[in-house]
Amino acid sequence: MKWIDGGVTAASGYKASGVVAGIKPKRVKKDCALVLSDRAASVAGLFTTNVMKSPPVYWNIDMVTRGFGRAVFLNSGNANAATGEVGHRDVRTTAEAVARLNHIEPEEVGICSTGVIGVNLPMDRLLKGVEDATAALTDHGSLDAATAIMTTDKVAKERAIEVELSGGTVRIGGIAKGSGMLAPNMATMIAIITTDAAVSAPVLQAFTKHAVEASFNQISVDNDMSTSDTVLVFANGAAGLPEVDAEFQDAQKFTHALTVLCTELAKDLVKDGEGATKFVEIVVEGAENDDDAKRVARAIGLSSLCKTAFYGEDANWGRFACAAGYSGVDFDPNDLQVRLNDLVLCEKGLVAEYEEADAAAIMKNRAFQVGIRIGDGPGKAVFWTSDLSHDYVSINADYRT
Amino acid sequence: MKWIDGGVTAASGYKASGVVAGIKPKRVKKDCALVLSDRAASVAGLFTTNVMKSPPVYWNIDMVTRGFGRAVFLNSGNANAATGEVGHRDVRTTAEAVARLNHIEPEEVGICSTGVIGVNLPMDRLLKGVEDATAALTDHGSLDAATAIMTTDKVAKERAIEVELSGGTVRIGGIAKGSGMLAPNMATMIAIITTDAAVSAPVLQAFTKHAVEASFNQISVDNDMSTSDTVLVFANGAAGLPEVDAEFQDAQKFTHALTVLCTELAKDLVKDGEGATKFVEIVVEGAENDDDAKRVARAIGLSSLCKTAFYGEDANWGRFACAAGYSGVDFDPNDLQVRLNDLVLCEKGLVAEYEEADAAAIMKNRAFQVGIRIGDGPGKAVFWTSDLSHDYVSINADYRT
Repeated sequence: MKWIDGGVTAASGYKASGVVAGIKPKRVKKDCALVLSDRAASVAGLFTTNVMKSPPVYWNIDMVTRGFGRAVFLNSGNANAATGEVGHRDVRTTAEAVARLNHIEPEEVGICSTGVIGVNLPMDRLLKGVEDATAALTDHGSLDAATAIMTTDKVAKERAIEVELSGGTVRIGGIAKGSGMLAPNMATMIAIITTDAAVSAPVLQAFTKHAVEASFNQISVDNDMSTSDTVLVFANGAAGLPEVDAEFQDAQKFTHALTVLCTELAKDLVKDGEGATKFVEIVVEGAENDDDAKRVARAIGLSSLCKTAFYGEDANWGRFACAAGYSGVDFDPNDLQVRLNDLVLCEKGLVAEYEEADAAAIMKNRAFQVGIRIGDGPGKAVFWTSDLSHDYVSINADYRT
Repeated sequence: MKWIDGGVTAASGYKASGVVAGIKPKRVKKDCALVLSDRAASVAGLFTTNVMKSPPVYWNIDMVTRGFGRAVFLNSGNANAATGEVGHRDVRTTAEAVARLNHIEPEEVGICSTGVIGVNLPMDRLLKGVEDATAALTDHGSLDAATAIMTTDKVAKERAIEVELSGGTVRIGGIAKGSGMLAPNMATMIAIITTDAAVSAPVLQAFTKHAVEASFNQISVDNDMSTSDTVLVFANGAAGLPEVDAEFQDAQKFTHALTVLCTELAKDLVKDGEGATKFVEIVVEGAENDDDAKRVARAIGLSSLCKTAFYGEDANWGRFACAAGYSGVDFDPNDLQVRLNDLVLCEKGLVAEYEEADAAAIMKNRAFQVGIRIGDGPGKAVFWTSDLSHDYVSINADYRT
């Protein structure tokens, strides 16, 4: 397994593009993207659990239920959410335009929209975007596509990986956007993953669920879950190898690679979180089970007080202990250990002997780890979060202006 | 029922004081308070559900379990939390000192500590504080006590109310502190309530639970729940009237007055929340039941994106709708109405016809209401929250420095 270039177009048989269609306010930034497979592909996906799902999410759920597709068209600048019947009609119109220009079926076209809620799409400009994005498709268009789906993201995110299976090499690549409203359970993020492995749709869905659970569901910038969160995975078999689940070892290798890819993309989202100046990995051990460990990690990762302490470079372990304490997980406070990287700040629930300067030095880093042990159980979890900074407030107080 | 002066010493038979003992860093601000009843009183109380409860909380739970008490001693500047056996011993030592100087039993003395976590109390200075606070007790000492329990609070909070029962007048008064780590389920706040009504301990506990549920449990500044949250209610019967539950109407009137008092104190906490520039009342209606309505109100009241929109005076109703959508309550998005005061921003899940200038004008106020209707059910709830400002980040990034 090795990292390679190429993002969502690293795997064989995929093209992508990103163009300016004028959906974003100033009409100068790329805001429409297209990813296309040159042959039929299995499709898997996971979506926001928000009851206010956007029309595109409903459309994609239908595609994933059928289990096959060929393309996904994405726009930033407008989420097409809380847009009612008009919103649903605009999704269909867009899919039909993509299908007509690319000689496929509308039902093979996924649609993702991200941006402002409650405003109808400017369909004239969007349909021009479909035309331009189709004309711009290339087998090295990943970065353009990654750029076109950015909202408050500061950098485009793309990753790709190559993995050896028993019959040969397959590639998995992807693009993602996040930044605001990142939260557990995939809040405002979109990730499009492509692979040239051959995987049946039900198996691909199982692999995807496993990978997302350990990656996109374990991150937070704030605690808000959007109306649009989407992960779509396409597997077109263009590598010409047997189906991945034919060999148990291949299935393991492939799932591992998909999970690693998703985890790196998820971490990229946190690192580029709105106003983020810190990247904090929270590791919880000693819980009765993994779910309990997740709840503790999440409570710390979501706490405004912990996140402002990260920002202030303040090794205020009392806040981490306190958040663990209200996570809803029952543990004996006398078993609690709190660490910063390898430095023990709290042992058996009491302050440990350490130099404040050593703790402060760790927190001055861009990235560090908070370690929590709550007992002797086998349960553990990792969660990635950012700090809560002045810039987070600035960005979100002025989002629409 | 009418508002009166006097706070926690408004009711007959209570004295209070607040003194400087040098627990807070600069040793110039009041940081020790004492409230004393001149006769035996029933005691009720509610406490943090955090598993990392501080030693004082365990001590108070024991007092409330017995159901009677005479006094409460409080300090700010140090929470005596995550302090282990030493912390428990310090609580007992403090209670014994208060008891000896005031000729009561240690078991009749409640203890509250708020401030930094994980540091042992400076007991020499604290015990001097017990002496000075005892010497300073007066029947008009409420404001001094309210001042001494402040942490990052900017103003002291005290309220009192007079209510006519069938046999005559009783008074209920209180002091409270909050500011940081306010969250549903009574996160970092302390409230001490006194009344000269006669109420048996079990009945007082039931009344208190009702009042707290509708007040202190319905507020948030951030979403963090402290190790120290405490509400203690003393009822000493000094008004000389029959027990409150002798008459059904009296019980109703008293509970209502207690709830109104707690609600005003709770709102005072939010108004003085860390960095708060806005006071927002979130009213949810049309849910299947009150619990569902509470969950929707809470999701909006706790959302960083909604709270930064309040701060930015941005009528971004999509964020309110989105938070309602991920609250975990199932509703039909097509039934959703979102209001700012009386201005309808969203009707049947779609943007309503309104002037952006009208919405902006409402949000420029210091206080306004966000109204949410999610259906035709009878469930409703009110929640009070502040905004998320640059100052919140500043205050909490630099708390210990």
